[in-house]
Amino acid sequence: MIPLESSVAQLAHAELLTPRMDQSLWFFRDVLGLEESARDGRSIYLRAYEDFYHHTLQLTEAGSAGLGHIAWRAASEVALQTLTGRLETTGLGQGWSPGTLGHGPAYRFASPDGHPMEVLWEVGYYQASPEKRSLLRNRPQKRPLRGVPVRRLDHVNVLARSVSGVREFMQEILGFRLREQKVGEGGTEVGAWLSVSPMVHEIAVMRDATGAAGRFHHLAYWYGYPQHLIDAADVCADYEITIEAGPGKHGTTQAMFLYVFEPGGTRVELFGDTGYLIFDPDWKTVVWDVANESDLEKSSIWCGGRLPETFYTYGTPSRQEVGPVRT
Amino acid sequence: MIPLESSVAQLAHAELLTPRMDQSLWFFRDVLGLEESARDGRSIYLRAYEDFYHHTLQLTEAGSAGLGHIAWRAASEVALQTLTGRLETTGLGQGWSPGTLGHGPAYRFASPDGHPMEVLWEVGYYQASPEKRSLLRNRPQKRPLRGVPVRRLDHVNVLARSVSGVREFMQEILGFRLREQKVGEGGTEVGAWLSVSPMVHEIAVMRDATGAAGRFHHLAYWYGYPQHLIDAADVCADYEITIEAGPGKHGTTQAMFLYVFEPGGTRVELFGDTGYLIFDPDWKTVVWDVANESDLEKSSIWCGGRLPETFYTYGTPSRQEVGPVRT
Amino acid sequence: MIPLESSVAQLAHAELLTPRMDQSLWFFRDVLGLEESARDGRSIYLRAYEDFYHHTLQLTEAGSAGLGHIAWRAASEVALQTLTGRLETTGLGQGWSPGTLGHGPAYRFASPDGHPMEVLWEVGYYQASPEKRSLLRNRPQKRPLRGVPVRRLDHVNVLARSVSGVREFMQEILGFRLREQKVGEGGTEVGAWLSVSPMVHEIAVMRDATGAAGRFHHLAYWYGYPQHLIDAADVCADYEITIEAGPGKHGTTQAMFLYVFEPGGTRVELFGDTGYLIFDPDWKTVVWDVANESDLEKSSIWCGGRLPETFYTYGTPSRQEVGPVRT
Amino acid sequence: MIPLESSVAQLAHAELLTPRMDQSLWFFRDVLGLEESARDGRSIYLRAYEDFYHHTLQLTEAGSAGLGHIAWRAASEVALQTLTGRLETTGLGQGWSPGTLGHGPAYRFASPDGHPMEVLWEVGYYQASPEKRSLLRNRPQKRPLRGVPVRRLDHVNVLARSVSGVREFMQEILGFRLREQKVGEGGTEVGAWLSVSPMVHEIAVMRDATGAAGRFHHLAYWYGYPQHLIDAADVCADYEITIEAGPGKHGTTQAMFLYVFEPGGTRVELFGDTGYLIFDPDWKTVVWDVANESDLEKSSIWCGGRLPETFYTYGTPSRQEVGPVRT
Repeated sequence: MIPLESSVAQLAHAELLTPRMDQSLWFFRDVLGLEESARDGRSIYLRAYEDFYHHTLQLTEAGSAGLGHIAWRAASEVALQTLTGRLETTGLGQGWSPGTLGHGPAYRFASPDGHPMEVLWEVGYYQASPEKRSLLRNRPQKRPLRGVPVRRLDHVNVLARSVSGVREFMQEILGFRLREQKVGEGGTEVGAWLSVSPMVHEIAVMRDATGAAGRFHHLAYWYGYPQHLIDAADVCADYEITIEAGPGKHGTTQAMFLYVFEPGGTRVELFGDTGYLIFDPDWKTVVWDVANESDLEKSSIWCGGRLPETFYTYGTPSRQEVGPVRT
Repeated sequence: MIPLESSVAQLAHAELLTPRMDQSLWFFRDVLGLEESARDGRSIYLRAYEDFYHHTLQLTEAGSAGLGHIAWRAASEVALQTLTGRLETTGLGQGWSPGTLGHGPAYRFASPDGHPMEVLWEVGYYQASPEKRSLLRNRPQKRPLRGVPVRRLDHVNVLARSVSGVREFMQEILGFRLREQKVGEGGTEVGAWLSVSPMVHEIAVMRDATGAAGRFHHLAYWYGYPQHLIDAADVCADYEITIEAGPGKHGTTQAMFLYVFEPGGTRVELFGDTGYLIFDPDWKTVVWDVANESDLEKSSIWCGGRLPETFYTYGTPSRQEVGPVRT
Repeated sequence: MIPLESSVAQLAHAELLTPRMDQSLWFFRDVLGLEESARDGRSIYLRAYEDFYHHTLQLTEAGSAGLGHIAWRAASEVALQTLTGRLETTGLGQGWSPGTLGHGPAYRFASPDGHPMEVLWEVGYYQASPEKRSLLRNRPQKRPLRGVPVRRLDHVNVLARSVSGVREFMQEILGFRLREQKVGEGGTEVGAWLSVSPMVHEIAVMRDATGAAGRFHHLAYWYGYPQHLIDAADVCADYEITIEAGPGKHGTTQAMFLYVFEPGGTRVELFGDTGYLIFDPDWKTVVWDVANESDLEKSSIWCGGRLPETFYTYGTPSRQEVGPVRT
Repeated sequence: MIPLESSVAQLAHAELLTPRMDQSLWFFRDVLGLEESARDGRSIYLRAYEDFYHHTLQLTEAGSAGLGHIAWRAASEVALQTLTGRLETTGLGQGWSPGTLGHGPAYRFASPDGHPMEVLWEVGYYQASPEKRSLLRNRPQKRPLRGVPVRRLDHVNVLARSVSGVREFMQEILGFRLREQKVGEGGTEVGAWLSVSPMVHEIAVMRDATGAAGRFHHLAYWYGYPQHLIDAADVCADYEITIEAGPGKHGTTQAMFLYVFEPGGTRVELFGDTGYLIFDPDWKTVVWDVANESDLEKSSIWCGGRLPETFYTYGTPSRQEVGPVRT
């Protein structure tokens, strides 16, 4: 197990591609209450009101929905060097990209399944204008008076042709710990939840039921309170944003979830509590045997509805439609 | 419209039949936190901690699940006489039953679809023992330290071969107001929500998809807070009480709901907020045109999962099984 | 007791005077999410998103904070005639004012303590523009994406030199029922909670500790969910709106409350649940003996902080300052 | 900064002394829903339903309320050796105590202010009996049907004559990070919040306003949901458990809190959310300048009531009484 001192420390941001920039922006800004930090070319940079850095979401205009990249922050400047050294040995490294809006140089690479990622150390901190400054000194800015505002970026979830391949890479190269796992018929690994913090996951890897490689499942922002999931669901119903599932509670991770499709076509999870946290330094991976019917059902949904078929087949990029999109 | 002064004032209690008394009692007492008031023959009398009367639930041992009766309280002693007078003209009256545990004489009758009901005036008030007395003077007793305690009885829901028949009877004989209505193909009435208070319903009538007459759909107890629905769902999942649907929010009545089957086989709704209240004395019935797809979907589920087929076909008495029952 | 058929049916709206129109409007619209219906002269008309009528709040520019008037809706057109007949016998009637924005002719009068009131029958219903129309047929418009939006008007609270005088007037002339009461040393009535619906109050009357007559204590809008009180408190703290007390729970009425001062100087209550509801047609008034220390404490605060001195002395109009006002 | 690999990993358990064992047990078991693991001599061992180890609370009968000890778990077996090595250099080490119920050998020491502590590696894991086993594989047992059950142990808070002394010891010897800090007149440190995880604190150190040394302020169990704080406050009010403050929200740590006194006299915090989490590996300590009035007020209470004088003066052991104690 890689020491935490030389591993990834956190999820820094994600870049999502959208073919409907205006509507995606409306969703993230007016419904989820994100704040715009900057614009640059075809990208708009956003953050939640408790995100401390320049941005946690880069929205980029493109022909179709998809993942631009996932950015991880290293545990230290030294850790970044160690990480890039390890990445270079994998053949998956793509070299350095120069510093850009909101952060310093980033080392680009792909997961074994092809998900574009980067790791970086230097970050730009958000500085509130006097008007937005909060008297709450540990809050980067006042709570927005827009939509049902999410508090911070939480995690990403990717689909993979080989769950084990991506999972081992995240553990052995980037230093993640395997917290929970779904194992199916014949011991096939069909899902993995990994983290470098006491949260159960900063990244989940799930088997792509379509057999495609390198697709993105969802990005999750955090509310912390179940009532806000209910509020978000009410608002999404009223403004005709497609709800895929929830509010409900997964068995895996014990997360209270709501899954919606942002108007550009990417699935977004709204996360309504903190699930449970893992402080045990000697944690034994929780294994769900999904060949067993109870585990199959309870791991997906502990209570609150069910997960529709699209949950296992829809990822971005995709040729599937995800239901009515507000125009 | 019958003046409120000579109509029913409220739902007083309901009697449910159960073939598994011990388990039903465990569910209502240990999971929902009801308090036992008395035992008599094959019946156990229970109430929620904010119910003011002797009991709101009479559990009676029987060969199979079913509705014993629904009891309404008249607006006054005079109103009771007026109501029984009107009932006698319908041919549905069955005469007086003498006072029993918790209330005075009750006039027995059936709805046009055959649901057993009674109306009464005199009630016995619950008196807490010194140990259970609350310093909160408007709370009949201390909040129980058992389960996820419901606060009070809320409403009943019955299935009917003819929704219109039962609905008109409730309006014209008992004085209810029609608050919401579902109308299907060719103007057929498939659901009606009626009340004598600002709540949207003390009784709902829904078409029985199986064509059976006089069946019972559910009894609802009230929490008031959505978090308690989440808590109840968590506890029901843990103790293997079958959850049929929810937590979710109906369009009709705007109720936050959780539907479970108590171990005896009766569907019980746990009600997580107050929905909306109607204070307009000139209220126009909200009509959902369920031949229209949007109304069909939104009236059933505004957000949060979906209603399974059993919701439309399962009532008590029944020959259907309702999933795993805890033994 | 006056039959409900010839009494007041509900609180229709209130008019508040403000010396800081822009800031008051910002508070009600951007923080509480009210919607503007119309402007007329020095008044702006607003409603919450679940209010069915044209407006529930009329904000009027004036030299200082105060109550413009409280408007009650009669139970029917006939009830309005009965009510005005009774009002004329009291000597407190002031005659008819013609129909205005949002409602028909209103009969003006004052409470025995001098609070300006009116009673009316004809109301204008709000009609949402296509863009704001909700698919939820019992919701007058989409839920706003602004602030922490309140759902509907709930109640008013007035200060009085003589609680008994105002209380008896509300009962004997307007048809209210006395739900709860605080009685102090020597049997002096120091507070009364009255309603015509199962809610514990549409109006409360509390003794003015300063001995002034005819002052206004607060207007209450309803959330229904405790989390929204917490959200509102967080937002008020962030935007430097003065919080007087709460979130907390009163013993009287069992209400979850948050009291803030809108920037014009009027106290506004945000109401976080429904308290308890009274369905018993034979309700015995809950009497709190506030000469008794337990009742004194528990009736004010059941849990959650305490009520500061201003709660008993500050009313509008006032010469007192209510703490920092956002500029 | 000590690498996380050779520091403390988490708070393992705490031992509290109580002069009223029966009532303390009633409070922790019946009100907070803790489960009894074992009894041994004058001690009862308890855990919350999401605690993974044998116990997180050891209640020990004694002449007066006080702290028995605080137990930390090291990051690994090797880390335990490194930690004890460092502790020995401080002169505060007291040597090894043999393994006992629920854990292996523990190295005993005192903080510079005299708080009894220990650090250990080997722990016993709780194993649910078949009846209590949950189908939720990451939940150690079914959720109890007793009281308002807390989910897990969260943190401890100690009073100190010298905040800086204890704070530096926690950082330099045990590996904690300083997350937030209150600094008063002339730069005196009056409070410090430290953690080894993304939580803002596993331990807080506050200046003892009475000048006493080595006293204990409170133990905190975690709910995660604000509604449960409201429930706990309601239940404590009903069962006459003294509430000192809350529900409210601190500025420091952004915690939703409720402070009560367990019947033995120890202050217990119930923690209603997760506050905010710190993932930034380069976190700059949040400093509140409490010589400044805004910081003084906002750091203590962001919203929700106020902290009474006892919050700064009452610690255990104590000669103060903490209000009515249920008998």
